[in-house]
Amino acid sequence: MSPTAKRARTAKDVPYDLIYWPGIPGRGEPIRLVLEEAGASYTDTATTNDVNTVLSQISKKNTGDASNPPHFAPPILKHGDLTISQLPNILQYLGQRHGLAPRLDGEDGGDGAYIVNQLALTVFDGLSNETHDTHHPVSMDLTYEDQQPESLRRADDYRKNRLPKYLGYFERVLAGEASGEGPWLHGGQLTYADIVLFQCLDGVKHAFPKALKTLEDSGDYSGVFKLYEAVRERPKIKAYLESDRRQKYSLGIYRCYAELDEQ
Amino acid sequence: MSPTAKRARTAKDVPYDLIYWPGIPGRGEPIRLVLEEAGASYTDTATTNDVNTVLSQISKKNTGDASNPPHFAPPILKHGDLTISQLPNILQYLGQRHGLAPRLDGEDGGDGAYIVNQLALTVFDGLSNETHDTHHPVSMDLTYEDQQPESLRRADDYRKNRLPKYLGYFERVLAGEASGEGPWLHGGQLTYADIVLFQCLDGVKHAFPKALKTLEDSGDYSGVFKLYEAVRERPKIKAYLESDRRQKYSLGIYRCYAELDEQ
Repeated sequence: MSPTAKRARTAKDVPYDLIYWPGIPGRGEPIRLVLEEAGASYTDTATTNDVNTVLSQISKKNTGDASNPPHFAPPILKHGDLTISQLPNILQYLGQRHGLAPRLDGEDGGDGAYIVNQLALTVFDGLSNETHDTHHPVSMDLTYEDQQPESLRRADDYRKNRLPKYLGYFERVLAGEASGEGPWLHGGQLTYADIVLFQCLDGVKHAFPKALKTLEDSGDYSGVFKLYEAVRERPKIKAYLESDRRQKYSLGIYRCYAELDEQ
Repeated sequence: MSPTAKRARTAKDVPYDLIYWPGIPGRGEPIRLVLEEAGASYTDTATTNDVNTVLSQISKKNTGDASNPPHFAPPILKHGDLTISQLPNILQYLGQRHGLAPRLDGEDGGDGAYIVNQLALTVFDGLSNETHDTHHPVSMDLTYEDQQPESLRRADDYRKNRLPKYLGYFERVLAGEASGEGPWLHGGQLTYADIVLFQCLDGVKHAFPKALKTLEDSGDYSGVFKLYEAVRERPKIKAYLESDRRQKYSLGIYRCYAELDEQ
């Protein structure tokens, strides 16, 4: 390691700053869970109700600074001189720093790190983005009420086709040899992809309680639900979930509209 | 570097295999452009019309192998013993191997690599996923014709709000100090994020020719359109675009339905 790289590392021996909307767990929550599991120090604009910091980061006047471009949307993570956005990107960064993913400079040439990134991206596609779109299929600038007929159609497809397809995929990942021993998705070790799957499944449980119960009771996805329990029982995550830092679901990604769930 | 890592690298001195649907450029295309710019050797199931390889990779019976989990959807990249999916993930892998991103083990502690990943993820959100959803706002299992009323609403919002918002964001990135000299998004160097922005903008140009022309003529996004030209003029990319390996847009992500475009 060159002296320059060493200096860069030392400069980052500071807490993380999580910049995300107060009032909803949303896309900030997988980051919080990873930070909690890692036992890392962090500040959080949700805790301090600091919406101005979020707004200034995504302001149309913001063009970033000498080393960082501006950001399209939160979550944003500030760490020393680095400020990055995009949830899967932030988690990859934290996973590398806190042993929650195989190393990119590991003896496997980094292969395991790309596999974990792939799994996390697939969780977000299926259980975060597609879940969000059930109540906003037309426009993010309209309210749910203004796109309810479209939402009913989309939610029906989500419950019947998309959700079982994604859960079936993760069940196959868990059944595969590459998942290794124990409840985890890859290599027999807890990674941030497991934490992401826990959080997104928890959100779906809030939004579609009946549909998810039906899928759980089918027994077809027992590995997925075992992983959910295994993450929830991690001591640091358990303590966090029981603390007042864990926010309630409200009008974010995961919304409980009874008419969109199974009837 | 340990002897194990060295062996892993040597085992990868083989061509890449791109596994993607024949007949549409789709999510395979940013990968092809990066491989072409890098001058890398690769096979392509689109060229050989080998749909069976795609189907076997995503079959419900496939649980992966000893080191790789199965895949939810193509594109999939096979390279030696590694098989990865998820477009942003594949591009990050190739970017590292071919000098089309700052190094993850670089003197900046990898910061630049995460910034480029962030930019590419944002291009995909805005100019690939959201563009796709204009003709499939309700369900991917239904045809466009079966969700046309919803598509008209969604496309209207996309043209008027989302597309200008994303282009405005990339214009701010280009105006920012961190973009460096020249036409590129970050650090004054061509990265895979630039190639991704070119390809996705090219797709939007096909799908919404009138709306994009209006935005181009406004002069508000001149940096974005300069970048588009600069990528198109890269010698290897130019040669590829003129070759018969470059497929025509058809019924993939980018579809030209006149009724969805500006009237």
